[in-house]
Amino acid sequence: MLVSCAAYLDGQKVADLDIDRIPDYLRRPNCFVWVALHDPTAAELTDLQRVFALHPLAVEDAQAGHERPKIEEYGDSLFAVLHLVEPADGEFHVGEVAIFAGSNYVLSVRNNAQKGFQDVRARCEREPDLLRHGPGFILYALIDAVVDRYFPILELLEDELDAVEASIFAPKGVPRENIESLYALKQRLMVMKHAVAPLLEGISNLSGARVPPLCAGTSLYFRDVYDHLQRLNQTAESIRDTVATAISVNLSMVTLQENETMKRLAAYAALLAVPTMIAGIYGMNFEHMPELKWHYGYALSLAVMAALDIFLFFRFKRARWL
Amino acid sequence: MLVSCAAYLDGQKVADLDIDRIPDYLRRPNCFVWVALHDPTAAELTDLQRVFALHPLAVEDAQAGHERPKIEEYGDSLFAVLHLVEPADGEFHVGEVAIFAGSNYVLSVRNNAQKGFQDVRARCEREPDLLRHGPGFILYALIDAVVDRYFPILELLEDELDAVEASIFAPKGVPRENIESLYALKQRLMVMKHAVAPLLEGISNLSGARVPPLCAGTSLYFRDVYDHLQRLNQTAESIRDTVATAISVNLSMVTLQENETMKRLAAYAALLAVPTMIAGIYGMNFEHMPELKWHYGYALSLAVMAALDIFLFFRFKRARWL
Amino acid sequence: MLVSCAAYLDGQKVADLDIDRIPDYLRRPNCFVWVALHDPTAAELTDLQRVFALHPLAVEDAQAGHERPKIEEYGDSLFAVLHLVEPADGEFHVGEVAIFAGSNYVLSVRNNAQKGFQDVRARCEREPDLLRHGPGFILYALIDAVVDRYFPILELLEDELDAVEASIFAPKGVPRENIESLYALKQRLMVMKHAVAPLLEGISNLSGARVPPLCAGTSLYFRDVYDHLQRLNQTAESIRDTVATAISVNLSMVTLQENETMKRLAAYAALLAVPTMIAGIYGMNFEHMPELKWHYGYALSLAVMAALDIFLFFRFKRARWL
Amino acid sequence: MLVSCAAYLDGQKVADLDIDRIPDYLRRPNCFVWVALHDPTAAELTDLQRVFALHPLAVEDAQAGHERPKIEEYGDSLFAVLHLVEPADGEFHVGEVAIFAGSNYVLSVRNNAQKGFQDVRARCEREPDLLRHGPGFILYALIDAVVDRYFPILELLEDELDAVEASIFAPKGVPRENIESLYALKQRLMVMKHAVAPLLEGISNLSGARVPPLCAGTSLYFRDVYDHLQRLNQTAESIRDTVATAISVNLSMVTLQENETMKRLAAYAALLAVPTMIAGIYGMNFEHMPELKWHYGYALSLAVMAALDIFLFFRFKRARWL
Amino acid sequence: MLVSCAAYLDGQKVADLDIDRIPDYLRRPNCFVWVALHDPTAAELTDLQRVFALHPLAVEDAQAGHERPKIEEYGDSLFAVLHLVEPADGEFHVGEVAIFAGSNYVLSVRNNAQKGFQDVRARCEREPDLLRHGPGFILYALIDAVVDRYFPILELLEDELDAVEASIFAPKGVPRENIESLYALKQRLMVMKHAVAPLLEGISNLSGARVPPLCAGTSLYFRDVYDHLQRLNQTAESIRDTVATAISVNLSMVTLQENETMKRLAAYAALLAVPTMIAGIYGMNFEHMPELKWHYGYALSLAVMAALDIFLFFRFKRARWL
Repeated sequence: MLVSCAAYLDGQKVADLDIDRIPDYLRRPNCFVWVALHDPTAAELTDLQRVFALHPLAVEDAQAGHERPKIEEYGDSLFAVLHLVEPADGEFHVGEVAIFAGSNYVLSVRNNAQKGFQDVRARCEREPDLLRHGPGFILYALIDAVVDRYFPILELLEDELDAVEASIFAPKGVPRENIESLYALKQRLMVMKHAVAPLLEGISNLSGARVPPLCAGTSLYFRDVYDHLQRLNQTAESIRDTVATAISVNLSMVTLQENETMKRLAAYAALLAVPTMIAGIYGMNFEHMPELKWHYGYALSLAVMAALDIFLFFRFKRARWL
Repeated sequence: MLVSCAAYLDGQKVADLDIDRIPDYLRRPNCFVWVALHDPTAAELTDLQRVFALHPLAVEDAQAGHERPKIEEYGDSLFAVLHLVEPADGEFHVGEVAIFAGSNYVLSVRNNAQKGFQDVRARCEREPDLLRHGPGFILYALIDAVVDRYFPILELLEDELDAVEASIFAPKGVPRENIESLYALKQRLMVMKHAVAPLLEGISNLSGARVPPLCAGTSLYFRDVYDHLQRLNQTAESIRDTVATAISVNLSMVTLQENETMKRLAAYAALLAVPTMIAGIYGMNFEHMPELKWHYGYALSLAVMAALDIFLFFRFKRARWL
Repeated sequence: MLVSCAAYLDGQKVADLDIDRIPDYLRRPNCFVWVALHDPTAAELTDLQRVFALHPLAVEDAQAGHERPKIEEYGDSLFAVLHLVEPADGEFHVGEVAIFAGSNYVLSVRNNAQKGFQDVRARCEREPDLLRHGPGFILYALIDAVVDRYFPILELLEDELDAVEASIFAPKGVPRENIESLYALKQRLMVMKHAVAPLLEGISNLSGARVPPLCAGTSLYFRDVYDHLQRLNQTAESIRDTVATAISVNLSMVTLQENETMKRLAAYAALLAVPTMIAGIYGMNFEHMPELKWHYGYALSLAVMAALDIFLFFRFKRARWL
Repeated sequence: MLVSCAAYLDGQKVADLDIDRIPDYLRRPNCFVWVALHDPTAAELTDLQRVFALHPLAVEDAQAGHERPKIEEYGDSLFAVLHLVEPADGEFHVGEVAIFAGSNYVLSVRNNAQKGFQDVRARCEREPDLLRHGPGFILYALIDAVVDRYFPILELLEDELDAVEASIFAPKGVPRENIESLYALKQRLMVMKHAVAPLLEGISNLSGARVPPLCAGTSLYFRDVYDHLQRLNQTAESIRDTVATAISVNLSMVTLQENETMKRLAAYAALLAVPTMIAGIYGMNFEHMPELKWHYGYALSLAVMAALDIFLFFRFKRARWL
Repeated sequence: MLVSCAAYLDGQKVADLDIDRIPDYLRRPNCFVWVALHDPTAAELTDLQRVFALHPLAVEDAQAGHERPKIEEYGDSLFAVLHLVEPADGEFHVGEVAIFAGSNYVLSVRNNAQKGFQDVRARCEREPDLLRHGPGFILYALIDAVVDRYFPILELLEDELDAVEASIFAPKGVPRENIESLYALKQRLMVMKHAVAPLLEGISNLSGARVPPLCAGTSLYFRDVYDHLQRLNQTAESIRDTVATAISVNLSMVTLQENETMKRLAAYAALLAVPTMIAGIYGMNFEHMPELKWHYGYALSLAVMAALDIFLFFRFKRARWL
């Protein structure tokens, strides 16, 4: 589906176009065309492939659900694939945007994702000074928008992690469910890692020493994106590390809690076994058991039982067995 | 066993050949020969070694079961070894294909694997434009076919992993068997890692800055294979990481489950010990035990036992000990 | 808020300035201006951005809370962001200082941190020989001051770790609380890692082979900072490794301690079960039980009980079951 | 001890020599000398050091038991140290061979190892075409022989590991001994790692871009050795990873097995406690216990005990507690 | 404290000097001065800083206790800091030696360590051929001496580790104390790692492609030191890996041992519970219990108890529950 298609000259929009009229504008000097597609049909993509002379391998990647973000050079043009991560029902939904950028065109193909890039276009049109940089700047603006959307998602994961951590050491927590939460959290984190890490590598080529001509004037901007990606990557690493520790500590805390319970049950069992033993002794049928004849024998035996248990109870308390 | 042998000129098949007639075609300009062998005898390989002037070290690797994929340059020609992984009875069967590619020939030697490459030849013959690139393109087409066959195998592993994960947190799972499944899964994953990881390194040399002349016109295609391999590698890494966590979490869940059972048994034992103790007391043979004479002494004692156990039962329930 | 603003010529302060008068001094040869801001308003920053022609991306980073230290070149000028870590209530409070350094100015912007850099300015002014190196040296002096403040913080963590370690193997420790302490310690360590590690990378570019012109005369000093950062990083790594081992050993010691208790309770239970069994036997109501008629039957049975328990007690002691 | 010493010209052995006559042959053009020593005395080595002008540091390494394989250049000559690993009594015995190779000599010094290199010399002499490459080829042949001997040793470890793995999940295994086996296996693996890993690095310099002149004609052969070493290294890594997982899984399986036993014992104890409690109740001495007078009271009480236990037994079975 | 100070010419000592007379000798061609200090005062260092024109940053590092070994170039001169590790009371005491080496001087400053370098000086003076290489060789000799002292210390750790390992699998070991030993061992290993690892990096610059002029003639010697450091590093890594495995295996063995004990106690408890139950049954007070009247009832009941327990005892034995 065509979202929008416009021609720009000298930082200003000059026309909204039909796809048929793109070639006219591509021929004009300093003019470039910016096309945005959304879940396009094969026919739409084939049309634009012919118009912009896109490489078949890149078009194939833009069509098929590709699993790995990347930024590739095809001659003078650049081809980027980025993941669009959208939280939905406690899971992360992963869509994609493929961006083709040449000297006089930018084509973005969004697949399988809700939120579009109209806001990026609007902001670019508000700043002619920057838009004048041409397709290289638009490529930056789109990538920057995608990367900026990663931040709140990682913050979401951090908040969840904080919540789980708080309950690990809670005196009366329900830490068992935590393991499942942490396990799920780790898998969503993996989705983010797969969106960020390969991109980091790709972007570094657009901001380093040998920059493709298309990005020549905008390499400082790409360095900024690179810096954002590094922050994201570092945060993701931090979370991963903390999740691993939290899983293992949580498991241990649950085990300790169960052991604690076992210990207390065993201690109580011992408290019951003492009177049982004494009662057993005075339940024996020997003919000559003088205590049995004592008037206060029974009371005394009960007193001894109680005294022993009270003594043990406090000893157990002191030894933290109860 | 010779699978097929044909000569190509300008992207078109010009003849099916006997091995004897290969030298004629090798001499013709722009013509190249594509030979496919399957579990060849030493004699067949020696023949072709002479015809194509193959390096003895490479021929040796093509014959012996080699354990590590690789891509090597021998002067102007390239030699590739790839693993063919075929699932069979819950195990992975590993065969190999060795590919020799020179300026005017391609020789593929498949060992110890069922599925051949007839479909690759057919597809190449349908696209003369691409076939015109010569042996470099055929080398790509064969490698690409091998690599594409890795995807469903990794998906198989991912599906199995998902199934196991689902039962880790199932309330009434049989998680003990999971450990064995995960252990087996990890070993099959290792087979895939050993097929993919060394190839990644080898292919990077065919798509980077300094490409061998044979692949000069096809380096974008090899970059595409490289990209596929990176996706495979990333997926394999993901699975490996998840398997490790799943093993450890699963082990802990089993331990917790056993502890849970122990705890409940201990709690029930305590419930039995209380009446036993009381019964013991009234089983004592003291002469002066007034309760024994009470008319409702027995009933009362039973009531006390029941009351205590009911009280404890609910306390244990509330404390999650039962 | 403007902290101070002064012009320097030939290693000597020549004037305290208003922001308005900075341009005058920037024009004078060999003269440079050093401005220090503290939690500045957007307006203050915009003013100075115009005066020093700062890059908008850098200014944006100086304003927003940035999460990752870095050192970047913008043409001939340098832009550095560093973390200011201040311990507070057992947590680490993270502020930032952003430093802009050009050929004739240095601007430091401190955000969200208590302790300023007046002492750095004072020390620099006392050593005209060094101050003569210009903005590059001041950049060094500021970074050096920040890095030097990291040492006592890491020592704090080391001391805490030592304290916890001492109690892991203490015969009557309370090692359970240790896990929580170690967990918290690890998170504060993470804060330090995030302050140090990215800076290490940044500084290496100021002390290596290809130094920016601004730092040409001071690269030995930056190498010194680099060396300090490596020490910090190594210490942090050490602590991280030790914390991980300590957590796992501590968890195991707690488990062992609980198991120990269980074992002792079980052994005591066995000691009680022996007399209970014997008493049970002599509590049977068979008509023909000769022992029951013995005059010393009762005493003998008690003696047997005691003897068995004393024997078991010492055996258990010897086997370390008690 | 001198093992053998011969001069070669144009790929053919021309003479067996005494050490004294070596200098004559060194002077002849295209002629080279191949000397093999075995646990030499200091005097023997000193003699040959003078004859071949060996570097004192290299000679020192050849004499002393050196702990790390390496390949070093001394001017135009090469010096290699390799580990000879020989299995003996379930342990690995580590000897060494040091090889000095110059433009017209090869000297191999075997220390502390049983198996020599006579077979290498014999095979070389059978292939004059290859021997004509000179000392560089002999260096290759010796290294290749050493490396080829590593394969069966690693296979040994793999077989042992397979045997242990089979018993981890065996329903009635003795998995406790496994831990000790795996621990020992890991240490022998370490020995192999220390033989292979440093060599990998050393050989890469003989097969890469900048090859020493001595190996100029044989770099494809060294690449082949490098490939073998990579396979060994990969296998070793695999084993290491599997051993680590196997240890941890095995430990857990033992723990689970013990827990299982505890659980069953606890369940059986519960089965015994039920009749004990009932018997206790009817052992009480209350005067008014109507059941005691019933004619079938005793039989009924036994029936109730049996019924309860049978009921519990099947419930426990169903809950997998027994 | 000045340890010694001498001038050397052409590999021979020409004079023992006072510090005042050093400048005379520095001016003579081919002559160099070798000064050794031990825990010097600030004044002594300042004197020599002026004499040799040492860089203030280096002098500062030589004075303060520096925490990280390093080798740095200051113009044409080199500055090295090395750790001196001395075992004392089961701990490692870490001192330092700082070495300044220029074209005509060597200054070593030993801090906080007992053992000096008189033996190095003596050995150098015995070998004029080597001493003729000048300050570069002395730098090597000092570093080599420090590195050689690391070997026995690591061997100490290896021996301790072997001792602990032997007791992990001992049938009647006291493996609990092992954990503490291993933990302590790991921390001392850390001290060695911090001495060796940073040095490895530093030395590699003195033996590689681009060697500082000072070490031009001695780079083979520095390669030898580098090789020693690699061996040390590899050994340290091995120990570290083994310690980690040993800690975890040891913990598990202790847990298993405790579980084993618990299991046996539970099994014995079951053996006691069987007669207790039977005795309980015959202790019931039913009027009609025919067995009670049997003449051999009592004997029979005892026989049944014994028979059941003997039967269970052997079953438990066979099932390894006892």
